Amino acid sequence: MNDKDAAHLQELRRGTVVLASLLVLRTPGYGYALLDQLERAGFEVGGDTLYPLLRRLESQGLLVSEWNTDDARPRKFYRTSDEGVALATRLAADWDRLTESLHDLRGDLS
Amino acid sequence: MNDKDAAHLQELRRGTVVLASLLVLRTPGYGYALLDQLERAGFEVGGDTLYPLLRRLESQGLLVSEWNTDDARPRKFYRTSDEGVALATRLAADWDRLTESLHDLRGDLS
Repeated sequence: MNDKDAAHLQELRRGTVVLASLLVLRTPGYGYALLDQLERAGFEVGGDTLYPLLRRLESQGLLVSEWNTDDARPRKFYRTSDEGVALATRLAADWDRLTESLHDLRGDLS
Repeated sequence: MNDKDAAHLQELRRGTVVLASLLVLRTPGYGYALLDQLERAGFEVGGDTLYPLLRRLESQGLLVSEWNTDDARPRKFYRTSDEGVALATRLAADWDRLTESLHDLRGDLS
């Protein structure tokens, strides 16, 4: 695959990372665990993209965070807020509509 | 819907416009006709986004264009190149993989 094609694929995937993160973090979790889950699920995202995204979603009230201070090194974990779940629901519905529209346009494309 | 949510929805949709355009233009067509088709199919995109995108896809060899000079005012029409069809096939397969991954993550989300 050349750079140009890779850029188009990347653009297609980018918007899904927000939705995937909001869905996964309905179960509270650490950033690095989310990164691992997303990678295993096929959302190719790196920490350099994901960690700033999590902070942005928190500042927007879509995620809430708490510090786990049980260990010597405190760790922040995130949870999707009620508002975040509401947005995820809308994004998922939008994804379904787009999937349907694309299906109609694809026709006989293998 | 607030501005923040709208931005997330917009981001989810953005990557699909390239794929939708490559699919539709397997049948040669004018930019304004494509704009109309995409809007009717639910891909909310304006001419200020679509027309520069078409020129970019042409410069990348994914679309080819010809001028129709039958009328007093010449009009440019576009067609998806073989390379463009190949990319559309990959993007569509990627979309399917993302849909499957999102489905797994959604669980009981309505």
